[in-house]
Amino acid sequence: MINFYEIIGLVAAIITTASFLPQVFKTYKTKDTSGLSLTMYLTFFVGIVLWLIYGIHLKSLPMILANSITAILSLFLIIMKLKYK
Amino acid sequence: MINFYEIIGLVAAIITTASFLPQVFKTYKTKDTSGLSLTMYLTFFVGIVLWLIYGIHLKSLPMILANSITAILSLFLIIMKLKYK
Repeated sequence: MINFYEIIGLVAAIITTASFLPQVFKTYKTKDTSGLSLTMYLTFFVGIVLWLIYGIHLKSLPMILANSITAILSLFLIIMKLKYK
Repeated sequence: MINFYEIIGLVAAIITTASFLPQVFKTYKTKDTSGLSLTMYLTFFVGIVLWLIYGIHLKSLPMILANSITAILSLFLIIMKLKYK
């Protein structure tokens, strides 16, 4: 049963995950990774994986969804950075 | 009483919030906001406020801390963008 706050959480998940997409599309299209900081994205990736573990512990669907997808997207940017550096 | 998962959450909060700081310092120092997307930061800000509401509902200290600070930092970037555009 999804309540009001779960919906707030899901909308939050969609918005913050979506705000990550333009960077992913741009990097995929241009293969230009010169402006991306590898250290920053590696650090961010570790943080997102920890949020994911925490979200699984809380059994929070919005946190699990948002952090799984963001982890995959940031891992993609890390791979692009390593491939096209 | 802080348990293992709360510590995971707090470390996640510190890491993802810290990964936001270089942009804030850079913008504060250079006043160059030409590369910042207002639409992106406004959307992101709304998402973070919704995560904050959700985190308050979950009574999650890591979520409340991370999203309060990130909301303030992204609001700062929005103000800088409007001031120095």
